[in-house]
Amino acid sequence: MMRGRIAYAGAIHEAYPHEQGVRLADGRVCREDEVVWLAPIEVGTIFALGLNYAEHAKELQFSKQEEPLVFLKGPGTVLGHRGLTRRPADVTFMHYECELAVVIGRTAQNVAREDAMQHVAGYMIANDYAIRDYLENYYRPNLRVKNRDGGTVLGPWFVDAADIGDVTQLELRTFVNGTRQQCGNTRDLVTDIPALIEYLSGFMTLAPGDVMLTGTPEGIVSVNAGDEVVCEIDGLGRLVNTIASDADFGRA
Amino acid sequence: MMRGRIAYAGAIHEAYPHEQGVRLADGRVCREDEVVWLAPIEVGTIFALGLNYAEHAKELQFSKQEEPLVFLKGPGTVLGHRGLTRRPADVTFMHYECELAVVIGRTAQNVAREDAMQHVAGYMIANDYAIRDYLENYYRPNLRVKNRDGGTVLGPWFVDAADIGDVTQLELRTFVNGTRQQCGNTRDLVTDIPALIEYLSGFMTLAPGDVMLTGTPEGIVSVNAGDEVVCEIDGLGRLVNTIASDADFGRA
Repeated sequence: MMRGRIAYAGAIHEAYPHEQGVRLADGRVCREDEVVWLAPIEVGTIFALGLNYAEHAKELQFSKQEEPLVFLKGPGTVLGHRGLTRRPADVTFMHYECELAVVIGRTAQNVAREDAMQHVAGYMIANDYAIRDYLENYYRPNLRVKNRDGGTVLGPWFVDAADIGDVTQLELRTFVNGTRQQCGNTRDLVTDIPALIEYLSGFMTLAPGDVMLTGTPEGIVSVNAGDEVVCEIDGLGRLVNTIASDADFGRA
Repeated sequence: MMRGRIAYAGAIHEAYPHEQGVRLADGRVCREDEVVWLAPIEVGTIFALGLNYAEHAKELQFSKQEEPLVFLKGPGTVLGHRGLTRRPADVTFMHYECELAVVIGRTAQNVAREDAMQHVAGYMIANDYAIRDYLENYYRPNLRVKNRDGGTVLGPWFVDAADIGDVTQLELRTFVNGTRQQCGNTRDLVTDIPALIEYLSGFMTLAPGDVMLTGTPEGIVSVNAGDEVVCEIDGLGRLVNTIASDADFGRA
């Protein structure tokens, strides 16, 4: 099943795809543009991978790492479908990153690779923005690169694992203002999903609601205020968001 | 006011200091050892500082950094007073770190140093454990160093900012099995609280419930299974926890 989480008429609702837009759990049908889309789930810990597609690592001139490059993103970075992500006025490189987001469904501790997929509840599309100007070291991206407000766009849907045929063969595509800029396939993941669960659960507990952003393939260009960025993954839908300028936000 | 959060007789309660132990919000008084202490607040984003006391940085042979070394800790690391923190069997260096935890009370965006303290709700004691074996780079501690289960012990109390006289003159002390091993004073913070709020709120939003662990002073020794570690900070109480072995936990 595909399900989203939206705000509409004073409350937060679970919502499902409908030909006229979205259907709420209570039966109402709304146009997609009259609701506010939130991230499809309440997230726990957000893990993100650096350099997890070989071609993208090559694009950034890095060689293959010895262990997965995992860092955390804070809950304050999360944004839903159709949200606005702010581009700081004083930066040169703001990059989208279309990624398969894996949602943990069952507590995982010391889980072996062969049992790992039993701990996956489902998937979402993620757009994991980066402000490259501040990148000193790919191995530990600092907070100014990866922890901006609106820097983790999730949705529109959470899709049950059982509804995705082969998660190792999903194509990812990113369009900026309608032009395809990024294309990849989960078959090219350096650390695949079972290996990632085995690695992380070997030294800490993964809990239901924890999310792993599995890295982005090659095809990165900088985006500017006003750009519409659309990330697509086979079977997961189309995640749309727009880049806003500092002027759109004002100063606090 | 000092307040804690405890589990007792089937529910979670707000609790206050009492001469016989703790007093629940509903009036019951319990012995300290018959309740389960949780972290005093539901935490949002947890920020942690590396090398934020000059003498401790010297102890680790690092020179002063150019900007604050801030990283994130996940919500799964949090533990309350009297909790058990697991020592992995295969490591050599497990270090406690007594730290002043600053809790944000009001949303902060682009806040100047002179206004920063208005955004602080209060304080807690934190013990921010590190497994030094896995430390490759002090500037971006990886998850195996700082993101273990039970690696962020918080409590026993949340104390309102108004109840702490001068937060720049608080002594921190750590005792291992009764012997004082660590002593410092918040007057020696490299990046002080207003500077930290100014820095972080300059590129992201700080939200109520976000917690900043302000770093640890010198005096680090490795701890072993069975050790009792007590962190004290003037006006905030005594945070007790015990190191457990892998054998105490079993294997999942």
